[in-house]
Amino acid sequence: MADHTALPLVVLTEHFARLPGIGKKTAERLAYYIISQNDEDVSAFAEALLTAKREIHYCKCCQNLTDKEFCPICEDDRREHNTICVVESPKDVAAFERTNEYNGVYHVLHGLISPLDGVMPNQLKIRELLSRIQNQDISEIIMATNPTVEGDATAMYIASLLKPMNVTVTRLAFGLPVGGILEYADEVTLYKALENRNKM
Amino acid sequence: MADHTALPLVVLTEHFARLPGIGKKTAERLAYYIISQNDEDVSAFAEALLTAKREIHYCKCCQNLTDKEFCPICEDDRREHNTICVVESPKDVAAFERTNEYNGVYHVLHGLISPLDGVMPNQLKIRELLSRIQNQDISEIIMATNPTVEGDATAMYIASLLKPMNVTVTRLAFGLPVGGILEYADEVTLYKALENRNKM
Repeated sequence: MADHTALPLVVLTEHFARLPGIGKKTAERLAYYIISQNDEDVSAFAEALLTAKREIHYCKCCQNLTDKEFCPICEDDRREHNTICVVESPKDVAAFERTNEYNGVYHVLHGLISPLDGVMPNQLKIRELLSRIQNQDISEIIMATNPTVEGDATAMYIASLLKPMNVTVTRLAFGLPVGGILEYADEVTLYKALENRNKM
Repeated sequence: MADHTALPLVVLTEHFARLPGIGKKTAERLAYYIISQNDEDVSAFAEALLTAKREIHYCKCCQNLTDKEFCPICEDDRREHNTICVVESPKDVAAFERTNEYNGVYHVLHGLISPLDGVMPNQLKIRELLSRIQNQDISEIIMATNPTVEGDATAMYIASLLKPMNVTVTRLAFGLPVGGILEYADEVTLYKALENRNKM
C-alpha cells in the first residue's frame, strides 16, 4: 500500500498477506472489506481467532485438533479402535470422514519427513503413534500419507519402525482416479494402475 | 466441516468464509493455519482487526479512509486542490497514486449508482462532493469511475448535477490498453479507440 494509506490499514493488510495463499492485492481487498463491516462483526471475527487459538489443541490420543481432552472420534465406542489410519494433517482426517466409509480411528503426524525443509522424524507425532501401538491392542496401521516423495518416505520410515511390533502395516492403493481419463493419467500413475491390477 | 470438528474451529472457518473471494475450502485451510501459529501472532492479528475497525474512518474532505481528521492527500499543500478526481472506492485512489502522475486531490463515492443492487445516489458521497465544489475554488472534476454500466451512469448523473455549477467536468479516456494486442480487444474498446483517435 502507498504512503498515503493509514497505518492501521497497512498493519491489517500485512496480517492478511501472511496467511497462506493470500497475496498482496487480496490482502488489501480483505482489509478494505473489514473496514466496511459493522463493529459487531469485526469484534466477533477477532474473538473467533482468539477463542480458536486458545481452546484448540491436540487430542491426547490421535493428535487431531480438538477442544476437549480427547477428540470425538477417539471417544466414539462404535469405531474400531484397533485400526489406525496414519495421516499428515487434520485436513486429511476431514477428507476420510467425508467418505463415510472408514470406521477405524486416526493418528495425525502433523507433517511429513522432509530433510530439505528441515522436518526431521522427531518433529512429527511418531513417538505418540508407537506408544499407542505398545499400549493398545492394534491390529492394522494404514499408512495414508500423500503419494509424494515426502509422503512415501514417511510411510516407509514408520513402517520400518513398526516391523518388530507384530502389527499389519498397509498403504493406500495407487491407481487411476475414479472418473479420470486414462489418456490424461501421468506415466507413474498408469504404471501403478497396471502393476496393482485386480482380477475382475 | 464435519461433525467431529471442534466448535471454535468451525466458528473461525465460518468467519473466514464470509470474507469476499474466500471459499469454504480456503476458509478451512486458513483456520487450520491460525491454529498452527503462535499465540502472539494470533493476538496481533485479532488486535489489528479491532484497531483498524476502530481507528479508520472517512476523511472529512475527500471521504477516503484515514485514521486522522483529514487524509494525507487532502493535508498536502503541494497538491493541486482545485482538481478533484472522483472515484468509486479507496482502492481506486491507491491505483492512481501508483501512477505517480496525478497531482490533484480525490473524492471517494464509496459505491456506484446501481438500482438493481439497491444502491441509490443518496447512499453515495455525492452531497459531500457538491458541498466541496460550492465551498472551495474547484476548476476541474475528473470522473474516474469504472467504464461499466454503473460507472458510466454514476459519472453521467454527477455530471448533470454539476452542469449549473460552472466547473469543467471530464471523463477518463477509453481506448486500447497500453501493451494490449489489437486483435484481442473487444469491439466496444476498439470502437472507442477509433472514435477518440488523436493526431500524431
